[in-house]
Amino acid sequence: MYILVTYDVDTTCNEGARRLRRVAKACLDYGQRVQNSVFECEVTEAQLCTLKNMICDIIDVQTDSVRFYYLNKNIARRAEVLGVETSYNVNDAIII
Amino acid sequence: MYILVTYDVDTTCNEGARRLRRVAKACLDYGQRVQNSVFECEVTEAQLCTLKNMICDIIDVQTDSVRFYYLNKNIARRAEVLGVETSYNVNDAIII
Repeated sequence: MYILVTYDVDTTCNEGARRLRRVAKACLDYGQRVQNSVFECEVTEAQLCTLKNMICDIIDVQTDSVRFYYLNKNIARRAEVLGVETSYNVNDAIII
Repeated sequence: MYILVTYDVDTTCNEGARRLRRVAKACLDYGQRVQNSVFECEVTEAQLCTLKNMICDIIDVQTDSVRFYYLNKNIARRAEVLGVETSYNVNDAIII
């Protein structure tokens, strides 16, 4: 399934910035970063469960907020971008 | 339809912070802020078109990024939250 992970933390403190880096690293194992605190991931149910457990171990549940959104299966109706495009289609062929 | 608007801008400069406030104000006319730069909105096609036009007029397309995601119609399969919950269901009754 295709999911979006959004993360909110006060990165003005070093510990918050460190947690953001660790959440990003966990998400990057399953997808790509499209904005500073937004990640698009393509995962199975099992991978999503693993990712949630990893994130639970990283965040401070008293202050941080991580949201998981389930996106449209139809890629054409999934997302639109205004301004800078920082995404790529993970299913596209890579030309070397 | 139910959409998610995510916004990325360098808010360390005053102009960026001002643009973020203006984008937030535009989104809040159609939904709610659930994270610093994440907004959940319930809109018609016409309202989405209006919102996009408003945001286009606000952002700096050379540096800012605004993404619109189309979410699942089934609310139970739309989103999950770890940590702080900052959302409310706009369709819930308000108890006074």
